[in-house]
Amino acid sequence: MVDKAEKNRPRVSVLGLGSMGSVLARHLIDAGYVTTVWNRTPGRADPLLAYGATEAETAAEAVAASDVVVVCLFDHASVHSVLDPLAGELARRAVVNVTTTKPSEARELGEWAGRARIPYLDGAIMAVPGMIGRPGATVLYSGSEDVFTEHRELLDVWAANTYYGEDAGRASLYDFALLSSMFVMFAGFMQGAALLAPAGVSAREFAGLAAPWLTAMTGELDGYAKVIDGGDYGVPGEMSLDFMNLGIYVEAAAEEGVGAEPIAMVQRLVQRQLDAGRGGEAFARIFESVRERSA
Amino acid sequence: MVDKAEKNRPRVSVLGLGSMGSVLARHLIDAGYVTTVWNRTPGRADPLLAYGATEAETAAEAVAASDVVVVCLFDHASVHSVLDPLAGELARRAVVNVTTTKPSEARELGEWAGRARIPYLDGAIMAVPGMIGRPGATVLYSGSEDVFTEHRELLDVWAANTYYGEDAGRASLYDFALLSSMFVMFAGFMQGAALLAPAGVSAREFAGLAAPWLTAMTGELDGYAKVIDGGDYGVPGEMSLDFMNLGIYVEAAAEEGVGAEPIAMVQRLVQRQLDAGRGGEAFARIFESVRERSA
Repeated sequence: MVDKAEKNRPRVSVLGLGSMGSVLARHLIDAGYVTTVWNRTPGRADPLLAYGATEAETAAEAVAASDVVVVCLFDHASVHSVLDPLAGELARRAVVNVTTTKPSEARELGEWAGRARIPYLDGAIMAVPGMIGRPGATVLYSGSEDVFTEHRELLDVWAANTYYGEDAGRASLYDFALLSSMFVMFAGFMQGAALLAPAGVSAREFAGLAAPWLTAMTGELDGYAKVIDGGDYGVPGEMSLDFMNLGIYVEAAAEEGVGAEPIAMVQRLVQRQLDAGRGGEAFARIFESVRERSA
Repeated sequence: MVDKAEKNRPRVSVLGLGSMGSVLARHLIDAGYVTTVWNRTPGRADPLLAYGATEAETAAEAVAASDVVVVCLFDHASVHSVLDPLAGELARRAVVNVTTTKPSEARELGEWAGRARIPYLDGAIMAVPGMIGRPGATVLYSGSEDVFTEHRELLDVWAANTYYGEDAGRASLYDFALLSSMFVMFAGFMQGAALLAPAGVSAREFAGLAAPWLTAMTGELDGYAKVIDGGDYGVPGEMSLDFMNLGIYVEAAAEEGVGAEPIAMVQRLVQRQLDAGRGGEAFARIFESVRERSA
């Protein structure tokens, strides 16, 4: 049934059919969008054709077919190599680029699009492909607010969305901050699992303890953040660095016969503050060890 | 009202009245236990005396007064210096040592207690003093199962408890694994907050995003643990290290003008596996980078 609402829906093209691009396209088709797909190397479109997509022979053909161009390519360089020759055509369309790029690269793409008068929205997908269209998936956007507002219904097909302003690099910046935190947390899990391994404790047993423990401990983050934002690490009520000897964790790893690289990193952050005479201040001061590019 | 159950309750002494020892004593008094307290430097007992505790002049006097001796001192050396001269007296009592010690030190204390025939239970408190007696506080125990079983009611006053077997070092080992993971996670939070700081994003705004994000991502730990325990990092369905270029996070931090020590640590763990020709295997393989004492 094609009602008026469906007729008014934008036609959409997806450039790049890696695992994420394919999933994004499939959800658009599911939601009833007229969807054209293109991939540099052929063959990736076949499962989507059976699903109802139209395959374009070239990126130019894909762009010409639609109102919204979703870009999900390998990296920043591949985005430029595909989009640069089509800048004129793109100026009449909305570009939603969800390719993973550094904040600096997303900013550069935003500036390039601005010069070419292309309505450009940069997206950072906080999900693996299997999470798309399910609760828990989030996409962070920044760049053109017009694109975000006008195509909100389309974007909502994939995930819950947040808009972070006109700076096209900002979504990527938040994305990198969250993903960096996540990877470091994963390394912390590996540290604990490694410490227990010689005693015959399985990683799964440890995961069963670590997941609720780390979840509970995320409750401390807001308190640290308050101290950081307040700018005074000498606040009372916080345990001071002098009383937090992380060296014993490094020693314990050595004694149990395993490496200590993740926890030794934290110990270095603490030690730099102790060396700077900041031992009487709060643990949150290790933020300064991270922020300063001394290392 | 002193009923029969209360009369049969053990008398308890707490050695060491730092912030944690004082809180442990106060909860015992609250729960109706006849409680004697002692601290090396005088004056720390005063608030507890008003509460109903009895102060002992010496550690020997404190030990003589009770059936259960709770030890909450500064470190492993202070435990030995206080308990060694009292070994004979302690042999007729139960010792519950919640002083923070390394697994190797807790094992050594367990062996020392074994030679002196002292019923010895080692405890690792997974809580700050303010959490004692509240939901969420946990104490891990190992060592004498008899002490754990016989005095379970007393131990339940403080926190939810788990018993990890006769090896007195085991509770500390679990404790160190969980705390190491936690400190590394905190450093990861600092990395994300530092990355956003130059853009004017407050640490509190980031904490509001990071806490639910990291909580959601703890859901990945069991999957990594399965791969680690399975011993085959080449399992299908896992994104391989070749496609996880954490170098872009390190570069992004430099480009934003902040340090990258936490995320650079994770990148080194990944790089060591790439250098070893393991790029086609799963991310969980960084466990091997942590476990091996190569660094």
